[in-house]
Amino acid sequence: MTSDDNSYDLDTVKGLNCSAPFNKWCGLDVLRAANGEAELQFAWKEDLGQYAGFLHAGLIAAALDTACGFAAVTTSGRVTASHFSMSCYEPGKGDFFSVIGRVVRAGKRQVFTQAELFGHGKGGERRLIASGEAILLKIPEQAR
Amino acid sequence: MTSDDNSYDLDTVKGLNCSAPFNKWCGLDVLRAANGEAELQFAWKEDLGQYAGFLHAGLIAAALDTACGFAAVTTSGRVTASHFSMSCYEPGKGDFFSVIGRVVRAGKRQVFTQAELFGHGKGGERRLIASGEAILLKIPEQAR
Amino acid sequence: MTSDDNSYDLDTVKGLNCSAPFNKWCGLDVLRAANGEAELQFAWKEDLGQYAGFLHAGLIAAALDTACGFAAVTTSGRVTASHFSMSCYEPGKGDFFSVIGRVVRAGKRQVFTQAELFGHGKGGERRLIASGEAILLKIPEQAR
Amino acid sequence: MTSDDNSYDLDTVKGLNCSAPFNKWCGLDVLRAANGEAELQFAWKEDLGQYAGFLHAGLIAAALDTACGFAAVTTSGRVTASHFSMSCYEPGKGDFFSVIGRVVRAGKRQVFTQAELFGHGKGGERRLIASGEAILLKIPEQAR
Repeated sequence: MTSDDNSYDLDTVKGLNCSAPFNKWCGLDVLRAANGEAELQFAWKEDLGQYAGFLHAGLIAAALDTACGFAAVTTSGRVTASHFSMSCYEPGKGDFFSVIGRVVRAGKRQVFTQAELFGHGKGGERRLIASGEAILLKIPEQAR
Repeated sequence: MTSDDNSYDLDTVKGLNCSAPFNKWCGLDVLRAANGEAELQFAWKEDLGQYAGFLHAGLIAAALDTACGFAAVTTSGRVTASHFSMSCYEPGKGDFFSVIGRVVRAGKRQVFTQAELFGHGKGGERRLIASGEAILLKIPEQAR
Repeated sequence: MTSDDNSYDLDTVKGLNCSAPFNKWCGLDVLRAANGEAELQFAWKEDLGQYAGFLHAGLIAAALDTACGFAAVTTSGRVTASHFSMSCYEPGKGDFFSVIGRVVRAGKRQVFTQAELFGHGKGGERRLIASGEAILLKIPEQAR
Repeated sequence: MTSDDNSYDLDTVKGLNCSAPFNKWCGLDVLRAANGEAELQFAWKEDLGQYAGFLHAGLIAAALDTACGFAAVTTSGRVTASHFSMSCYEPGKGDFFSVIGRVVRAGKRQVFTQAELFGHGKGGERRLIASGEAILLKIPEQAR
């Protein structure tokens, strides 16, 4: 994965994460971010739930989209969300959740990314809950 | 829009909304829900923000997806999320936000829905921020 | 719908359509194309079928994507496909098919579009078979 | 990848492919289909082109969607298309094209699949042109 000069390192991604109030409220923690990949983690808490007590689909989307975005900044610097989609495979259950994003194609103007969200149980098992895709637009130099 | 016998009325949708801790935290309020349409509203607060102080993409997704789901239950009763996608047109700015979901096609097994999210400013102006689509699976009687 | 100076008129869109061998093979005919909307039509023929004798999903995609693209060129001139999605509501049956594309948002770099495909029967009835969305990238002046 | 009793073997998939007039017109050839994966191939011919002489986006969609469907029948028997999406990374150039579909999750009612389309040049090089996703609904026994 080639990176351009504006690409972000782990500390910059951690700083970006901390500067987003919603990410802080979710408890999103950046484990790694480099070379077109990013891994985040967050613990279950009741406020993250939908009516049946599972992880809310909106938070599944938020986590997938954020992992996609953080993967993208490691290759392409500042980006903005254009399109996002996700498929939900099973209910969002877990003591904590991890989400791994990766860049599929970093073009001159667009960055194509994918991510997977896993639920982790007490016994160490990990289940795939949902996967998603995001297309991000690079923010041109002159607009920064 | 035809509805089956399990369809939800406004009070049931409001109850569903209140039973979801994340919806309460977001401040989501159900304005109307009937005949394949639902309208929700929520006020801006700082915790909803991304790094630049706009509405977080995850919350745009959450609001669109919830409006789609609430529109679906008015025709088809209990449903579960299968696929969601959204396109983001401009930064999520507003004093408050409204989101309108509608059922495009309510089949025997699937419900296809669309939603639009608007940001509302002080002067009464309304801007389209994002639109989304959700496919929901009907939960069969025997599984309830 | 505002258009930029590179926007295409109906004759240019018809020329574009004729210059694409696959569009000619499909029998795609451009009925109208202006102000962010385009309407195409094509007749059923056996070669367009899948195993059960209905319109092949690939041709549903082709028709929706083409209508989106032709709507986009009326506002934004030359574009290239970035992302496409579709939802299929019912089997592709009809004596002929029409597809209507429209621009939802024409930005500086991206054009967001939607389209609907209808099957037309002998009795004049029209049924919605599928709907789709395409995101197109504007081709910058210097790249033309 | 577990399969149910209705799953198709390679010969049945080849028969399905031959029974679709559009697949024959495209020249789609099934190389393998088993255990949730399918690989197809087809040669370039001028009729497959868009205005600039590259593979038409509609045919990129058709090939991706077909590979997804053929992967799905190897685990789940008869299915019908519900949702399809694709991202286009570069122009569709090649002497011939291959497309590989795989099942991500085969549920009781839905099958989630992904596919990648490659263009192959004279020198043996292979380039990723586009990737796609399809959600297919299983056709219940009683409906067959």
